[in-house]
Amino acid sequence: MSKKDNIVIIGAGLCGSLLALRLAQRGYKVSVYESRPDLRTTDISAGRSINLALSDRGFKALRLAGVEEKAREICIPMYGRLIHDKEGNTFASNYSGRENEYINSISRGDLNGILLTEAEKHENVTIHFNTKCTSVDIENTIAHFKSYTTEEDFSVDADVVFGTDGAGSVLRKSYYLEKKFLFSYSQNYLTHGYKELEIPADKVGNHQISKDHLHIWPRGQYMLIALPNLDGSFTVTLFLSYDEGEYNFNNLTSEEKITSFFENEFPDALALIPNIKDEFFNNPTGALGTVKCSPWMYQNKTMLMGDAAHAIVPFYGQGMNASFEDVTVFDAILDAHEGDWEKIFLVYQNARKEDTDAIADLAIDNYYEMRDHVANPLFKQKRKIEMDLESNFPTKYFSKYSMVTFNEEIPYARAMKKGRAQDKALLNLIADKEVTTSLDMTKEELKLVLRKVQEETNEILEEDKVAGLK
Amino acid sequence: MSKKDNIVIIGAGLCGSLLALRLAQRGYKVSVYESRPDLRTTDISAGRSINLALSDRGFKALRLAGVEEKAREICIPMYGRLIHDKEGNTFASNYSGRENEYINSISRGDLNGILLTEAEKHENVTIHFNTKCTSVDIENTIAHFKSYTTEEDFSVDADVVFGTDGAGSVLRKSYYLEKKFLFSYSQNYLTHGYKELEIPADKVGNHQISKDHLHIWPRGQYMLIALPNLDGSFTVTLFLSYDEGEYNFNNLTSEEKITSFFENEFPDALALIPNIKDEFFNNPTGALGTVKCSPWMYQNKTMLMGDAAHAIVPFYGQGMNASFEDVTVFDAILDAHEGDWEKIFLVYQNARKEDTDAIADLAIDNYYEMRDHVANPLFKQKRKIEMDLESNFPTKYFSKYSMVTFNEEIPYARAMKKGRAQDKALLNLIADKEVTTSLDMTKEELKLVLRKVQEETNEILEEDKVAGLK
Repeated sequence: MSKKDNIVIIGAGLCGSLLALRLAQRGYKVSVYESRPDLRTTDISAGRSINLALSDRGFKALRLAGVEEKAREICIPMYGRLIHDKEGNTFASNYSGRENEYINSISRGDLNGILLTEAEKHENVTIHFNTKCTSVDIENTIAHFKSYTTEEDFSVDADVVFGTDGAGSVLRKSYYLEKKFLFSYSQNYLTHGYKELEIPADKVGNHQISKDHLHIWPRGQYMLIALPNLDGSFTVTLFLSYDEGEYNFNNLTSEEKITSFFENEFPDALALIPNIKDEFFNNPTGALGTVKCSPWMYQNKTMLMGDAAHAIVPFYGQGMNASFEDVTVFDAILDAHEGDWEKIFLVYQNARKEDTDAIADLAIDNYYEMRDHVANPLFKQKRKIEMDLESNFPTKYFSKYSMVTFNEEIPYARAMKKGRAQDKALLNLIADKEVTTSLDMTKEELKLVLRKVQEETNEILEEDKVAGLK
Repeated sequence: MSKKDNIVIIGAGLCGSLLALRLAQRGYKVSVYESRPDLRTTDISAGRSINLALSDRGFKALRLAGVEEKAREICIPMYGRLIHDKEGNTFASNYSGRENEYINSISRGDLNGILLTEAEKHENVTIHFNTKCTSVDIENTIAHFKSYTTEEDFSVDADVVFGTDGAGSVLRKSYYLEKKFLFSYSQNYLTHGYKELEIPADKVGNHQISKDHLHIWPRGQYMLIALPNLDGSFTVTLFLSYDEGEYNFNNLTSEEKITSFFENEFPDALALIPNIKDEFFNNPTGALGTVKCSPWMYQNKTMLMGDAAHAIVPFYGQGMNASFEDVTVFDAILDAHEGDWEKIFLVYQNARKEDTDAIADLAIDNYYEMRDHVANPLFKQKRKIEMDLESNFPTKYFSKYSMVTFNEEIPYARAMKKGRAQDKALLNLIADKEVTTSLDMTKEELKLVLRKVQEETNEILEEDKVAGLK
């Protein structure tokens, strides 16, 4: 195999376009096929969230492909959560106690546009829009397509096929249906769905609430969040059960009921969403699913990447970052084994799978954390201590959130294991009153807290290890 | 709805035939369709394990249907594991420290035959063999079939359809493909497959090794087990990786290699398997998969039960028991809500799902326990202490294995939670030398051990609870 390998990428979303760009930079001949129109020239709803959280794992991949700065230009930093209670009171909870650690609200479409434009600058890349992959013959690496423009069906014979075609991946479906190998597969839905609404900019184009935060209205059984857009608006997302509880998507069918729901639960948000009725009725209700599967590859022929391999729920703000990180990890393995696709695929999956499983599980954890725990006193004390530890011992203490979000050198699986143990240690130390959170602790007192947390964390990890008989 | 409801059951395996019997006893009109021939009159390989472990949850369901005694007549009690090392040495590890707690080797075919015969004694039951379900129209509760006898296709319009058609359930597939609701679904395969072999009876028809034990040859990367049959033979199962390690199913392709594998790893077993070559080459290699899904039902129309709803790996000996317990749980809910199928289905799934998830996870745990841990010194010490605690405090201490296997009133999920905490407590107490296992402990000393284990277990559960913020 040589660099003249003819590579087909199915799907020109965030992962597919970054992968195309990177493979083009490495000299491969890349053909990308995307079922939707070109989002740079057509106003389309991707059917998915309008803005996303970009953080350090994502930036690392963008840096590798030379597009970090372009992305940063369209970012809005969010330094923490701003939590809104039912009375309209707010309190802030920073994401980190360190300086310069924040996440970024970014437009999915704008970022995708940047990647497509950069990829197309390479003459060894061609991108075909309005071209739907209908199935893949994985044995012969032949991808079948239908052009929405000409209505014609056609096939492409590739050396290697990448499926970066998202949670509903056609390549993955071919694995499932062709039954050429034992394919472990799961799709798991939360009982909740989501719906997007909008807080428009004020009359002079400014944000009506703090643009420096990710806003959360946690209410246990449901939750509203809002992320800022560059035009002064916020994209608001309601997470709500389909059919359980007093209010749910199935029974919120009249304007009256919707208004009463928001008046009772989110009065301050309601005041900022002028078109709530139209948006509620016209915007689709999206499902929240997690997809895991294995193997991602078939021999030396095909490979799933991004959401196609591991779709996750949005609650850790890591979906895009994880998909971009796929490209970083894959690129390093290409360096080591270029020319041997079978080896590359195997080493890649072995290196990557436990980390994408981990971020899927962490994202589910965060669903409960955001909905239920952010307003819980024990949790608030824990976050307060973590902020103090991070600001006083910036090189020694990293919360789970920091490890996942700001420490791209720590693999997700390690961040999960250590982070969960640390959370458990802290929560129990607080519950047992072994650490306190007075406002004016001295550095010496905090040092003692740090030591206790470290010791307790190590003990938890050790006890788990013994129980696992490892 | 009345008792005249026309019920279709797809699949006359263990779960389907017990369900048919029980529903018939309750007065329903039941039609059962089974793709295979009648196993009472045809010598068929079910493609599945020949003998199975029957224990208390299974007996409870058989008792409900009045067939416990008939089943007991064909049982062979197994009181513990007999572990074989590479040198042919053996040591026994009992399943319980209490009297009268044992599992039973039973022939799948014979037990299934008993259930079919009992079901057919009811004139409101008809069983159609050689009739393959091809799909189910779940909206209209119409099941489509193909008769292998007449080669004809036909349809049956039912009031309620039960899918007890095993791990490859056609009803479940219809849920997946019809996409009428968000269907959470997972199929997960172990990296290992299995193959059945046979230790024949000796010349006078006796068992050649102890028939009072489940035999295990644990070797880390692979494992052999053997369960006794009534005719003096043992069914032996080899668990082995498809493609990893020095020996695997993909590379054991010559008689030489197979013999050398068994000579090195299982010499005492090899001496007892005269037809190893033929059996190895002719018997199929089976996959080891776990299936979970949700919801099991569609409205008031269809319901999955048994392996169709929750297929598990065989390592806890609970597959059949869990499927039979489905019928026990379902029957109690029928008592409470008879006439309202939608309610019955909903209450049943809510009551049952976490328990079938738990036994699926426990079965995976036991895969590692049997393969790796049974010969581990720490694990052996733990089992020794547990036997001592169970025999000295039979009403106060129950190991995880006992809770799962012999305590049918403890739901699987509770057994898992408490059992895992207890295992962790014991292993850590042993590792930290806080409890010892001298041979001649007094009852007072053992009482102290019991108290330590209980305290440590409660602390573990409490710490987990705090960490879950519940």
